[in-house]
Amino acid sequence: MKEFELIQNIFQASMMANTQGRDDILVGIGDDCAQVAVPPGQSLVFSMDTLVEGRHFPLDADPVDIGYRAVATCVSDLAAMGAKPAFFTLALTIPESDPQWLAGLAQGMAELAEPIGLILVGGDTTKGPLTLTLQVHGYVEAGQTALRSHAKLGDDIYVTGLLGDASAAVPIVTGEVQVSSERFDYFYDRFWRPAPRLIAGMALKRVVHAMMDISDGLAQDLQHILKASGVGAKLDAHALPISDTLCQWQPEAAVTLALTGGDDYELCFTAAPEMADEIALITQTLHLPCTKVGKIVASGFDIDGYQGERHGWQHF
Amino acid sequence: MKEFELIQNIFQASMMANTQGRDDILVGIGDDCAQVAVPPGQSLVFSMDTLVEGRHFPLDADPVDIGYRAVATCVSDLAAMGAKPAFFTLALTIPESDPQWLAGLAQGMAELAEPIGLILVGGDTTKGPLTLTLQVHGYVEAGQTALRSHAKLGDDIYVTGLLGDASAAVPIVTGEVQVSSERFDYFYDRFWRPAPRLIAGMALKRVVHAMMDISDGLAQDLQHILKASGVGAKLDAHALPISDTLCQWQPEAAVTLALTGGDDYELCFTAAPEMADEIALITQTLHLPCTKVGKIVASGFDIDGYQGERHGWQHF
Repeated sequence: MKEFELIQNIFQASMMANTQGRDDILVGIGDDCAQVAVPPGQSLVFSMDTLVEGRHFPLDADPVDIGYRAVATCVSDLAAMGAKPAFFTLALTIPESDPQWLAGLAQGMAELAEPIGLILVGGDTTKGPLTLTLQVHGYVEAGQTALRSHAKLGDDIYVTGLLGDASAAVPIVTGEVQVSSERFDYFYDRFWRPAPRLIAGMALKRVVHAMMDISDGLAQDLQHILKASGVGAKLDAHALPISDTLCQWQPEAAVTLALTGGDDYELCFTAAPEMADEIALITQTLHLPCTKVGKIVASGFDIDGYQGERHGWQHF
Repeated sequence: MKEFELIQNIFQASMMANTQGRDDILVGIGDDCAQVAVPPGQSLVFSMDTLVEGRHFPLDADPVDIGYRAVATCVSDLAAMGAKPAFFTLALTIPESDPQWLAGLAQGMAELAEPIGLILVGGDTTKGPLTLTLQVHGYVEAGQTALRSHAKLGDDIYVTGLLGDASAAVPIVTGEVQVSSERFDYFYDRFWRPAPRLIAGMALKRVVHAMMDISDGLAQDLQHILKASGVGAKLDAHALPISDTLCQWQPEAAVTLALTGGDDYELCFTAAPEMADEIALITQTLHLPCTKVGKIVASGFDIDGYQGERHGWQHF
């Protein structure tokens, strides 16, 4: 068990486990349970995600990248609820304890967790096939979450950022496809460093109806909103926000990737048409691209200008 | 992904995912995050545990047993904090989706979770080697947790229940050792159906100083209290509570198993000597054996009447 104490020490020593100045964290790492006092007027929101090596990230990936991306993808669910990140737990199953690898993982996690105030307060370490389970927790005023079930007939459908880059990047990060170093750097970053839209989520929650993050591709994820809200949608394939880099590299596949590629971790939300100016103001202030890509209709799911594949992204 | 929707349906349909009558659960399974309003005056405590097949439970174990025990072992951490169980999340990694196996797992979890008011509110399902990670959450008044660091010089050391049965049971439940059917039934139950001492924990937290649950063996776990509190201990090996069944089956090994065997999930706590009557009253009311096994001293860790092995239990 000595080696597993080492692991705890690595994570405990990292800045992201520092609870100083955090009145809400009553007990952090090291007791039977962590203990938290949720600030008055706030509710707790949380999401749990598991990443399995070879399935959610490639074998032999850089542990710094794994750590960063694990936190980013999980925190993206807080963004989708308009919540402020607060703390997280980590269940780490590893085949052996390699201190250098673990330090890399902790560093990658801290790179994102520390600046957004997400503190590591507990977890578990076990021996077995490499698997990470994170539970991230945030605070939000009780009545102010943008649920998937709140889309309304006539709403505009928006997405933040650019779609398709992360899934286009998969064969590049796995080494299956060779590209120029400039292209490699762009796509490597797009896969490994998704930017959870936290501030956008917090600002938008007051003006949107339904909101979620896109992890399995817009076409698939939007259907969760449609199902939960009992409505349909009409998307405009020509409106999808796609990067110049992707358009140049994959002109044929770009639209399909933008529609069905996963791992983008952008926000998809619906809002009444009269909110357009306010949405533009918020996203422009944040220098965040935000694109109207369709409308909520009574039923069905049509994509104008597109006849291709609609299945969501299957990981590795 | 269809098969993974099936899994979610199995768990969602189980009684333990029923949030009716629970004002604290604002959003359960099915959105980006679950959302909870912690009741006024209460703090949130939580613990995360991972169980890996072949390491924390035997290969080919009954899924009902796996489910029950997974919840029991994790909930035991809530008992150690004197907290009331509230809700849990489940990250399930499975090699394939076998509906019958999954229904068994859900049934076993519900058998314990439902009567104690522990509701399933979220999680993740992924494909990979069989691994379960649970995070259980409970409520407790902010100032009333019995932490590991609160042991005081002169305290008595107590344990609840009987020690050693669960680790003695391991070769029986794995089929390595054959015993009479009566003995099999006793030990099978002692391994697979630990009883988290929830009510005892809630009642005792007001009268004890330090408290924790015993998962890796008394000798090893007690040292966490000693280290956190900066004190020592003197245990009396002859005082350890051991079942007649274990004494008869393993007269030589019984004390070692009681000291170093894991998986008992009893409470170990320290309290001022003048609390003895109150502790007796609480535990007798609950018909729960409770035994004074030693004293907190200034430093060191001695076990009177014992010269054997002290290492904590290594799982499978």
